[in-house]
Amino acid sequence: MFTVTAQFNVIPGKEAEAEAAMKAVAEQVEENEPGALTYLWHRNTKDPAQILVFEVYRDEEAVDQHRASPYLAEFQKYFGPVFDPASVKIVRYERFAGVNR
Amino acid sequence: MFTVTAQFNVIPGKEAEAEAAMKAVAEQVEENEPGALTYLWHRNTKDPAQILVFEVYRDEEAVDQHRASPYLAEFQKYFGPVFDPASVKIVRYERFAGVNR
Repeated sequence: MFTVTAQFNVIPGKEAEAEAAMKAVAEQVEENEPGALTYLWHRNTKDPAQILVFEVYRDEEAVDQHRASPYLAEFQKYFGPVFDPASVKIVRYERFAGVNR
Repeated sequence: MFTVTAQFNVIPGKEAEAEAAMKAVAEQVEENEPGALTYLWHRNTKDPAQILVFEVYRDEEAVDQHRASPYLAEFQKYFGPVFDPASVKIVRYERFAGVNR
């Protein structure tokens, strides 16, 4: 099990397209990826253009399935017109302590 | 309900003290804060000195309890000797989509 965070910014004026695209991919992941144990979308409270996706995968196979999915390919087309490609930051983490009630 | 991320770096050579301090506060939160729904500690896989805490609080009262706790006050003493105070970044987020299985 491991964690991935994805961060990127919505281009000003593209909020509605961004919302639709993000909710579509969130629904697809929930429906099709049992190995995506957690897949949570957030907006920075002070600057709602800043998006954070907090993702926990069961194993490498689960993240490979996510990356190869047609809906992720579709979502990636929005980087440029809707999301700022220069803002993208993806980081992998290992969990070492804590609680998830 | 809202999410907070806390990021900071372990000072090189202070890994053992950092580990003990982080695990101590993680245990205290789990034991004493039912309003801390999620409180997960991570290390960046590529650079284990980079710490990410992913925190979900039930409400403002829950985060106030966390901030006023004696163990958090104790933990904050490590910023300087063990954790780099200049590296601290705390951000509040609103969740808008996703799944947590």
